[in-house]
Amino acid sequence: MSEKVAIVGTGLVGRAWSIVFARGGMDVCLWDPVEGVSANALRNIEKMLPELEEFGLLGNYGVSEVRGRLKICDDLRAALDGARHMQESGPERVEVKREIYRELVAHADDNTVLASSTSGIPSSAFTAQLSTRERCLVAHPINPPHIVPAVEIVPAAWTDADVVRQTAKLMRQVGQVPIELAREVEGFVVNRLQGALLAEAFRLVEDGVCAVDDVDAAIADGLGLRWSFIGPFETIDLNSPTGVRGYCDMLGPLYYALAKDQADPRPWTESLVDKVEAQRRQHLSEVDIAERQAWRDRRLAQLVGHKREAD
Amino acid sequence: MSEKVAIVGTGLVGRAWSIVFARGGMDVCLWDPVEGVSANALRNIEKMLPELEEFGLLGNYGVSEVRGRLKICDDLRAALDGARHMQESGPERVEVKREIYRELVAHADDNTVLASSTSGIPSSAFTAQLSTRERCLVAHPINPPHIVPAVEIVPAAWTDADVVRQTAKLMRQVGQVPIELAREVEGFVVNRLQGALLAEAFRLVEDGVCAVDDVDAAIADGLGLRWSFIGPFETIDLNSPTGVRGYCDMLGPLYYALAKDQADPRPWTESLVDKVEAQRRQHLSEVDIAERQAWRDRRLAQLVGHKREAD
Repeated sequence: MSEKVAIVGTGLVGRAWSIVFARGGMDVCLWDPVEGVSANALRNIEKMLPELEEFGLLGNYGVSEVRGRLKICDDLRAALDGARHMQESGPERVEVKREIYRELVAHADDNTVLASSTSGIPSSAFTAQLSTRERCLVAHPINPPHIVPAVEIVPAAWTDADVVRQTAKLMRQVGQVPIELAREVEGFVVNRLQGALLAEAFRLVEDGVCAVDDVDAAIADGLGLRWSFIGPFETIDLNSPTGVRGYCDMLGPLYYALAKDQADPRPWTESLVDKVEAQRRQHLSEVDIAERQAWRDRRLAQLVGHKREAD
Repeated sequence: MSEKVAIVGTGLVGRAWSIVFARGGMDVCLWDPVEGVSANALRNIEKMLPELEEFGLLGNYGVSEVRGRLKICDDLRAALDGARHMQESGPERVEVKREIYRELVAHADDNTVLASSTSGIPSSAFTAQLSTRERCLVAHPINPPHIVPAVEIVPAAWTDADVVRQTAKLMRQVGQVPIELAREVEGFVVNRLQGALLAEAFRLVEDGVCAVDDVDAAIADGLGLRWSFIGPFETIDLNSPTGVRGYCDMLGPLYYALAKDQADPRPWTESLVDKVEAQRRQHLSEVDIAERQAWRDRRLAQLVGHKREAD
């Protein structure tokens, strides 16, 4: 018997989650407070499925099987009824989340996990007053989740450890890769890592060390290649015959000197953003951004397909 | 008529450079001060070429054409004679580099560019006293350069601007991607970016926010996917409908808060390295590191082949 997942909020993120759970074998109910949004989501998903199948991203199933597991619910109670997991992808405003979660708790079964896709609001900020707050947590996708597998699992102080385990298990079951945080930290893990890299990227451009393109090439034609299949720790573990210990013995002092040099937090000033913007616009007009986003998603899908083959 | 490149120091890095220049159409002379090292390098290259051809990494040429452009020189003067470019990949010790460069300047033609593969020593530290120091600079590869295209071009204060241009042009000509630094900075650009990410990676593990594996998954199954074909600036440029400006307006304050939170430079202490090492060794024994390095290089080659196809 297949299991059920409820998708609450069916914009860009919610519809991507719908694909994740449906191709993972779950029955998926889509619900959105705004009329017509879920129907629109479903039409979009129907357009996306054939290409995903072509790239090998529907796993063991075909388009019609995946499509057959998706249905729209007009009623939140019906959407939640019998669901193992609820994935909320509403607006990124804490007062909206508080309102949504009050409703969710009123309608959800006692054992449904209530997970938010929020990229930055800790669930403690909108679940503190709830009677079943121990079943709430963050499951933050790296967009778009139907292509990028990583998902950050972030418990509040009161989240039941078993709820964390269940969520991580479900994510693995549907082919995602859970990143388990021990506690809430600002920016979670992914944006903290991205922020660290961006801070140095902006610093290099601000200080005139190199151009925007040079930073991008240093990653896209350099470090980013190995980072697409091994992370930064495995990277340095493989950069010394004696592993990470040998690497740190050799290069720890250099990196400590660099860290001291990089310890001046800088705001991204108007003039610095102007400089970066001007260099980016030489490659891509603002009107062409949407088209390039579609290109990026296709490239991401091809890359994930390539990785599965190579594994 | 093909042009000539001299490879000085034919260990792991020098032999990879030999492949880069030979598949780029150059005649390549290998020289090493230690007898037998270049012959060994050539035998290794012969073993590597068929697999590179299979992955599409010999460009327009076949194995025998690329092999045909490689020859060993027993004499430094002969190796340098008529060379457009000399790529030095000797030991990472400044006093050794000083000695090598004294010899190089004594034997090289007046118009040969003298480039060092050093990953961390600025060329000003070993070229200051040379009569032709304006033709010296750093061309630092991301290992291994026959697979990873990025190469950092780092001039000293006295390097001729035309020498920088010639070097960048040669690198493009042979299919590498030059990253041009305006001046010498500690760690150059690639290791500064890597250091920024590693500092936060170690911080997250030290603070018990998540495990080593979680950091690696956040990159290898998350951010690193897009970073393998677009850099960090293009990534954020495509994460807002109004490009990098819209992104910075929206998220600049969050990233500034994170930067302030990350502004405590930390040494990688013995106990922290122990913790990382213990987690890595659960996946990979020290005796298996060499085998995993070979796996990584194959995966890198497959990925670069995939990128060429997708482009």
